[in-house]
Amino acid sequence: LNLAADCNAILKALQPIFQEQGVTETIHNWEDHGYLATYIKKNGSFANLRIHPHGLVLVDLQSYNDHTKGREEVDQLLNKVEERMKELFHGNIKKVKRLPAILRGGVIDRYWPTADGRLVEYDIDEVVYDEDSPFQNIKILHSKQFGNILILSGDVNLAESDLAYTQAIMGSGKEDYTGKEVLILGGGDGGILYEIVKLKPKMVTMVEISFASNIDQMVIDGCKKYMRKTCGDVLDNLKGECYQVLIEDCIPVLKRYAKEGRMFDYVINDLTAVPISTSPEEDSTWEFLRLILDLSMKVLKQDGKYFTQ
Amino acid sequence: LNLAADCNAILKALQPIFQEQGVTETIHNWEDHGYLATYIKKNGSFANLRIHPHGLVLVDLQSYNDHTKGREEVDQLLNKVEERMKELFHGNIKKVKRLPAILRGGVIDRYWPTADGRLVEYDIDEVVYDEDSPFQNIKILHSKQFGNILILSGDVNLAESDLAYTQAIMGSGKEDYTGKEVLILGGGDGGILYEIVKLKPKMVTMVEISFASNIDQMVIDGCKKYMRKTCGDVLDNLKGECYQVLIEDCIPVLKRYAKEGRMFDYVINDLTAVPISTSPEEDSTWEFLRLILDLSMKVLKQDGKYFTQ
Repeated sequence: LNLAADCNAILKALQPIFQEQGVTETIHNWEDHGYLATYIKKNGSFANLRIHPHGLVLVDLQSYNDHTKGREEVDQLLNKVEERMKELFHGNIKKVKRLPAILRGGVIDRYWPTADGRLVEYDIDEVVYDEDSPFQNIKILHSKQFGNILILSGDVNLAESDLAYTQAIMGSGKEDYTGKEVLILGGGDGGILYEIVKLKPKMVTMVEISFASNIDQMVIDGCKKYMRKTCGDVLDNLKGECYQVLIEDCIPVLKRYAKEGRMFDYVINDLTAVPISTSPEEDSTWEFLRLILDLSMKVLKQDGKYFTQ
Repeated sequence: LNLAADCNAILKALQPIFQEQGVTETIHNWEDHGYLATYIKKNGSFANLRIHPHGLVLVDLQSYNDHTKGREEVDQLLNKVEERMKELFHGNIKKVKRLPAILRGGVIDRYWPTADGRLVEYDIDEVVYDEDSPFQNIKILHSKQFGNILILSGDVNLAESDLAYTQAIMGSGKEDYTGKEVLILGGGDGGILYEIVKLKPKMVTMVEISFASNIDQMVIDGCKKYMRKTCGDVLDNLKGECYQVLIEDCIPVLKRYAKEGRMFDYVINDLTAVPISTSPEEDSTWEFLRLILDLSMKVLKQDGKYFTQ
């Protein structure tokens, strides 16, 4: 096997495909790392052809235009590259893969990586809400598949289609909330509150804001307007027949309830795992989580239940 | 506003960041379409800096290595670019976005675009099964999030976590299958069969294969081995106490049943929307779908139910 010669053969075989497009060609030969050929067109688009000595060939095309335009042209070019490569290696190619085009610089950003850093493109077709609060950037984007999606500082938080999440943190339909005292920590999107209020509880208290979660008043404002499939009308008023919303840090509220002996049948902790900010005495995430758990146990009736993520 | 001058100012401001890496530099100036600067390092990696006159600046870094290595270095470089740009425009930058690295050429392919062409990266950590049947490529890949995932010719088909799909096509838990006659068209992954058999039906007949679906014998072989959370043991034998699996094209089977007057309480059509191949007389997808529907109605009892995607 002569790898350097193979690299050169690939370059020579593919060169005419790019050259016939009327390009400026620049070729870099690393000797021991293969080739990089750059083909630049007059209209501002260009192609990178990277040939690695161990046989990996990468073709990247970049252009500035309406992404629906020119897609056929791109496919034709890639078909030719694939064909020529198959000829050259007599069909003996391990794998061929084309990835969808990545769209950058548009008004609508469709790429919202997961918490574990994976690239995910959503079918977003509208920016519904986009505001900066003192704490974070708040976006609500519309997806055909998921409905409106709440995105806080780039992290996908909740979509209108996420009823399953709300149902799960409420005990998957196995709990009877009728006539019960319920405390929700966090939950600023209103989803849990909305679903529990339907079940005729005695009283639901939702404590939401500031250091204890990454929900702030502007998130609530956005949700009550644009996430109504999730929250219905429960965020329109901070008080209803069987519920109240306290826009307060939950820690002092929990301490107060514990001191007063106020007890609940259910405590549902929907605070985010990592708080956006904690006061200095609760400076580690684990300490913060333990504090919340300890205080929750203090306000929970003996046969009460605690649900969390 | 002097756009050409701005382009040049960006290039000049960012150039030193790349140059200090010890690179070979190539600059293309389109005049009316901005700049492309290519910076090539000795180790085989390179960077493309594309500056558009209307203000979009794209930086692409490509390198060949273990993706965990060098990530910090990349972040540092991009931090510098971001910083320099903010200095240059006095913080007046509309948007900054970094996307996760795209990994190509590895043993494990993590990118499986959706049916509507969106790029999705799965947390795949193992290739469990990878075979070519006469009809298609069959892959079963393991994802931490979804369990084993069945992928047919690049299309994500079903994951072990997709019980919700199976439940939905069975009527979302609202149907009583006890003592009933059930016909499943397709469903070669065994998910529906497995779930219905648990509900003590009189008899379930599953008709699976060939032209009517994109499931073939090798798919069944892969599923019964590697998708057991989905199908349990029902695919181990083609006949059980209350079920049978017919490896036949469903159209002649339906015709035979209709002629014999064999009737069902439930027909569940889990055939894919677009059949992989149809015989010449059913050459359009719509005609094929209508034929299946017509034949299904002929074998359905008067109070029977038909479920499909």
